[in-house]
Amino acid sequence: MGRASKGQATAATAPVIIMVRPQLGENIGMAARAMLNCGLSSLRLVSPRDGWPNERAQRAASGADIVLEQAEIFETVGEAVADLEHVLATTARNRELSQRILTARHAATEMRGWIGQGRRIGVMFGPERTGLENDDMVHADTALSIPLNPQFSSLNVAQAVLLVAYEWSASGDTTPVERMAEHATRPATKEELQNLFEHLERALDQSGFLRNKDMRPSMVLNLRALLQRAQMTEQEARTFHGVIKFLSKGKHEE
Amino acid sequence: MGRASKGQATAATAPVIIMVRPQLGENIGMAARAMLNCGLSSLRLVSPRDGWPNERAQRAASGADIVLEQAEIFETVGEAVADLEHVLATTARNRELSQRILTARHAATEMRGWIGQGRRIGVMFGPERTGLENDDMVHADTALSIPLNPQFSSLNVAQAVLLVAYEWSASGDTTPVERMAEHATRPATKEELQNLFEHLERALDQSGFLRNKDMRPSMVLNLRALLQRAQMTEQEARTFHGVIKFLSKGKHEE
Repeated sequence: MGRASKGQATAATAPVIIMVRPQLGENIGMAARAMLNCGLSSLRLVSPRDGWPNERAQRAASGADIVLEQAEIFETVGEAVADLEHVLATTARNRELSQRILTARHAATEMRGWIGQGRRIGVMFGPERTGLENDDMVHADTALSIPLNPQFSSLNVAQAVLLVAYEWSASGDTTPVERMAEHATRPATKEELQNLFEHLERALDQSGFLRNKDMRPSMVLNLRALLQRAQMTEQEARTFHGVIKFLSKGKHEE
Repeated sequence: MGRASKGQATAATAPVIIMVRPQLGENIGMAARAMLNCGLSSLRLVSPRDGWPNERAQRAASGADIVLEQAEIFETVGEAVADLEHVLATTARNRELSQRILTARHAATEMRGWIGQGRRIGVMFGPERTGLENDDMVHADTALSIPLNPQFSSLNVAQAVLLVAYEWSASGDTTPVERMAEHATRPATKEELQNLFEHLERALDQSGFLRNKDMRPSMVLNLRALLQRAQMTEQEARTFHGVIKFLSKGKHEE
């Protein structure tokens, strides 16, 4: 077993991930990658089955080496959580203890609150085969459960780390829920669309497509609604002017 | 390559997952497991590199065999999306096309809306090494992007499937954000707590702990606040009565 360092006073800007008695190196590595994907980097391992360091973990980390290099190793859960002020424990079901159980999403919100007060937080994950035992759970303030398909809820431990880390990251994320690809030009203004619609309608009048006077008004409205729905960029409106011009060329020359 | 079935009219109760030119069987299997964890079961594969069926996929699925057995195989993206009405495409960055880009969470909300109208929806994921090409992306109505650590955003494809499937599942989830473990008895009523506090204070008065009359009121308030914060169950309140009784036994006999 590697060094059994004392938990250092972690800069309390994000939760620590604690893997308890992990069995497969691959899962440790995939968990490290998932953590770094979500901006987490503090990993603690309690009694990893195959010792430490672990080559399979390194291969599975796919570049998240920094997380593995800085990982701290402990012999017991008690030592691994000693310097923390709040501990959450992931559990598929809680067998005996009377604990609050939070969804992963709500837990992320609570963790943001604690971290905002400078508290040191950890989230524990159990071994692949059995999950956390009661003797582990008793170190936790709160249980955390990820709502999943009740008919098939057995989640790989690295996937569980990903979902908890993702909810943490999402709880602080400010990405606009909808945007346009960055290289896209600005959206067309309503005046630009108006000009485009009029160009199209002139061309359609000349071509005879709108010759039925009774049908014309609803035809025009429907075409405008269709094109408006496409939410054209200014560049696309110009392209479309060209499309109309070239399609109607023959007609002009007639 | 396996059968190239025509996309069947899927019961439109959940989105279809489309993996485009997946390279590693392990990732197909892990994606299948993640899908079933989140209640999704329709998987389509476009030109899987190592053919189909794939033994490595089966091993990695860890019991989600039903998803792999029902997987449909297509030669082109066009064929794989032919019967769908809305297609989203996951992309780390969109290189050329002017498309709306939604966060995974917002996309889940939009998908709920479409599915609610009985529409058939698919979400495309690209090959491990390169992601989706522009020629693939053009089959999509909307791009979907998962906000991640910009310094380390390369997500394993099975992890990407998990996050999209999880957001889909979470968007329809009604699990209470906080609950107590199921075996826990009901919370203590305020009257039961009141009785407990009074029992404790009588015992502390007899023991001499509250003998300082000036300190007594704030001491009592602080102890009540502490015990109230523990949110005892009715069972725990009874246990605590026993703790007080036995700790103060010696005092009664003096």
